[in-house]
Amino acid sequence: MKRIVIIGGCAAGPKTAAKTKRVNPENIVELYTMENMISYSACGMPYYIKGSVPSYQNLIIRTPEDFKKQGIDVFLNHKCTRILPDEKSVIFNTMVNGVGEIKKVNYDELVLCVGSRPYTPKVKNINLENIFHLKVLDDGIKIKEKMEKSKSAIILGGGYIAIEILEAFVKNGLNVTVVERNHKIMSQFDPEISTIIKDYITKRDGKHVDFILDDEIIEFIGTKEFTGAVTRNGKTLHADFCVVAAGVVPNVELAREAGIEIGITGGIKTDNRMRTNIEHIWAAGDCTEETCLITKRPMYAALGTIANKQGRVAGINVNTDTNGVYEAFDGILGSAVTSYFDFSMSTTGLTETKARIFAKNSSIEPITATVTKRDKPGYMPDSNSITVKLVADKRTGELLGAQAVGVGDADKRIYTVTSALRANLTVQEFLHLDLTYSPAFSSTIDPLLTAAYKLKDEIDK
Amino acid sequence: MKRIVIIGGCAAGPKTAAKTKRVNPENIVELYTMENMISYSACGMPYYIKGSVPSYQNLIIRTPEDFKKQGIDVFLNHKCTRILPDEKSVIFNTMVNGVGEIKKVNYDELVLCVGSRPYTPKVKNINLENIFHLKVLDDGIKIKEKMEKSKSAIILGGGYIAIEILEAFVKNGLNVTVVERNHKIMSQFDPEISTIIKDYITKRDGKHVDFILDDEIIEFIGTKEFTGAVTRNGKTLHADFCVVAAGVVPNVELAREAGIEIGITGGIKTDNRMRTNIEHIWAAGDCTEETCLITKRPMYAALGTIANKQGRVAGINVNTDTNGVYEAFDGILGSAVTSYFDFSMSTTGLTETKARIFAKNSSIEPITATVTKRDKPGYMPDSNSITVKLVADKRTGELLGAQAVGVGDADKRIYTVTSALRANLTVQEFLHLDLTYSPAFSSTIDPLLTAAYKLKDEIDK
Repeated sequence: MKRIVIIGGCAAGPKTAAKTKRVNPENIVELYTMENMISYSACGMPYYIKGSVPSYQNLIIRTPEDFKKQGIDVFLNHKCTRILPDEKSVIFNTMVNGVGEIKKVNYDELVLCVGSRPYTPKVKNINLENIFHLKVLDDGIKIKEKMEKSKSAIILGGGYIAIEILEAFVKNGLNVTVVERNHKIMSQFDPEISTIIKDYITKRDGKHVDFILDDEIIEFIGTKEFTGAVTRNGKTLHADFCVVAAGVVPNVELAREAGIEIGITGGIKTDNRMRTNIEHIWAAGDCTEETCLITKRPMYAALGTIANKQGRVAGINVNTDTNGVYEAFDGILGSAVTSYFDFSMSTTGLTETKARIFAKNSSIEPITATVTKRDKPGYMPDSNSITVKLVADKRTGELLGAQAVGVGDADKRIYTVTSALRANLTVQEFLHLDLTYSPAFSSTIDPLLTAAYKLKDEIDK
Repeated sequence: MKRIVIIGGCAAGPKTAAKTKRVNPENIVELYTMENMISYSACGMPYYIKGSVPSYQNLIIRTPEDFKKQGIDVFLNHKCTRILPDEKSVIFNTMVNGVGEIKKVNYDELVLCVGSRPYTPKVKNINLENIFHLKVLDDGIKIKEKMEKSKSAIILGGGYIAIEILEAFVKNGLNVTVVERNHKIMSQFDPEISTIIKDYITKRDGKHVDFILDDEIIEFIGTKEFTGAVTRNGKTLHADFCVVAAGVVPNVELAREAGIEIGITGGIKTDNRMRTNIEHIWAAGDCTEETCLITKRPMYAALGTIANKQGRVAGINVNTDTNGVYEAFDGILGSAVTSYFDFSMSTTGLTETKARIFAKNSSIEPITATVTKRDKPGYMPDSNSITVKLVADKRTGELLGAQAVGVGDADKRIYTVTSALRANLTVQEFLHLDLTYSPAFSSTIDPLLTAAYKLKDEIDK
């Protein structure tokens, strides 16, 4: 029997707890979180703000009582302040009957699922009221409340979360200014694909959405409450509130203090069993860095789906002996998807941009093909256009990555490429893939395969 | 310069013609068909009958004039009656100014894309009026006309086409009896999955749809016109008309007469370049048999998507020298999809049933896992349930096939498995696939992966 202490209550933590208890019900499993609730879908918050999800309570997956029933003890409002590997214990600050208290907890195995926090850019007056981040559930509740009383907003950032919040705000009648430091929004995509995304948003909602690119907010205006912002290029913007969605950074400070190795990306370094460099300390979820399956190099991605998978692996492995059979989490492809109303944007593996950077220090020779084609035969009433871009290595013919965007079913195509990348399929092998076909679901020659044909031609040139 | 003669005008023929002309514009390319139109989507006909596609003309992809512009000569109403390999010519019956004429055409390369025809079961009085098949475009037009004047119909058969026609008829207010010889409909799926499909149809439209299984029509009633049918088990059925949708058989008679080898499945045997056993004669599309990529054994599948791919390969290869670089069509997975209104049914690779049959003559040891789970988080308004069944080889851990059905996005999951099967991925490799994730598109742990986890547990037992 072991005492397994898990810190973090969003995705990886609850998953680790549930899995480890299932694998060995004998163990004592304790789940600590600094928040006042656990196990909720952080990724669902934009949809709650938008109004598709009626109540924030819908986002709660399991309650402390649910965990209790499974034999897992949940401790809310416990903020970890120190990890003591030598004596195998952790220190928490908590409140007992309204009085602050310091608690020391011993562990046999410690799993850090301490997540990430919003990146806070160095902008003057960023602590004004009505400047929000979106990380914990409480943030979502507050943003929704504010949105419902407002007519305009500024979003700092132009990535996945920014676009999801933009949709929510436009849906609710707000005028929105998006300020993005980069020269393009959705910079996870290649420039010309980002342009397609931006053009769609502008065409659909140009009256309500303003993009300010290649510029950044340097100062927020207001005394106590936010009223606007000034950009580096001298623009003054006014709005009722602002959401900062400029990415996230892993919470690694406590780990670093305890001597746990931090990787080059800034996340906690683990092996494929989710072990850190310190014995009996494991890590999973947004606080860790991953390995890119294409480049075999470290990368950082904070995503609920990865957190869940890593939690599962950690939950299994904390129960195994060092030399026993273990579960491995080998790495990721950087797959991601989001949408702006009917328009999907989905990607996996390397973009051309990333492939060209990787090519500088490797032997790959990136080559690409892009096609824009209907996702179903043109005669079907719900047929829509998607743009698919494939990236491959001209030298080996292996696929390296794919992007797909459009009103049609783009994500389905990227799903398919993920297994091709996992298996190092070549374009030639991928070319005649026996995809299912019916006019209600796809075109006779799928856009994916049309792109592969084109890419093959490029490789053969 | 070569004279390339292509026989068949639906999918593989037009594709071969277009491709071969693009590869080498010097060649004379002639496309012959016995029909009065070419290059249309046969798979779109049920959607035309249903009413989703406004006119049958929407189904026509390219007209003879389109081909003419590309330098391809199209000959309509030319019925091939003989192939003469020794003198490299073919004989056609045709009409010139209303007078029947016999034409002999010489070829340098001959490509047979002569397709398939509906299987006609041996039923008494099957030639009565108002008994229809659905193969050529004209069939679709006639069935739609009849449906619009009718209140009831019988469908003989319970496979893909039967289900698509059933949807069209139900949508148009008809009462329909489906008579299927097998004890289940959609017998391409495992029994318990077929049951889920049938239960959905019955729950949704039980008042209008009657399934008669494990029985068959032995006689049609009527003198000139069909009025009903009698089954083996003694049931007498009455309806306004009947559609026979009992599968298709490849058109191989001319080929056989000419000494072209016919495979064990009944389709023309080709190598992976689409060459028949007779020099300068090629075949592509519904008239050929394919190789199953899983079992490496012959299989027969008549699908537009395969016809297109084979046409592309044949079109390239007829231009190459015997020893030159060629394009290969390695085989298929038996992937297929259809839907009944919002309910999708999609499959690839081996079902458990097929795997168990294959196991009798191979070293595989089939093992399966099935999960029913939402395709998106439960809090999303458009989240729906799908059932995913995976089949693997316990011995090697390799995936062998997958089936997915449900109101949710089942086909997306099967698309993904096709590339896994193409690459012989093991369940262990597939397990942590980095699928894209956002609540608008999928659940944090996709049903596919949940099924893979479960399957892994079965393998490890």
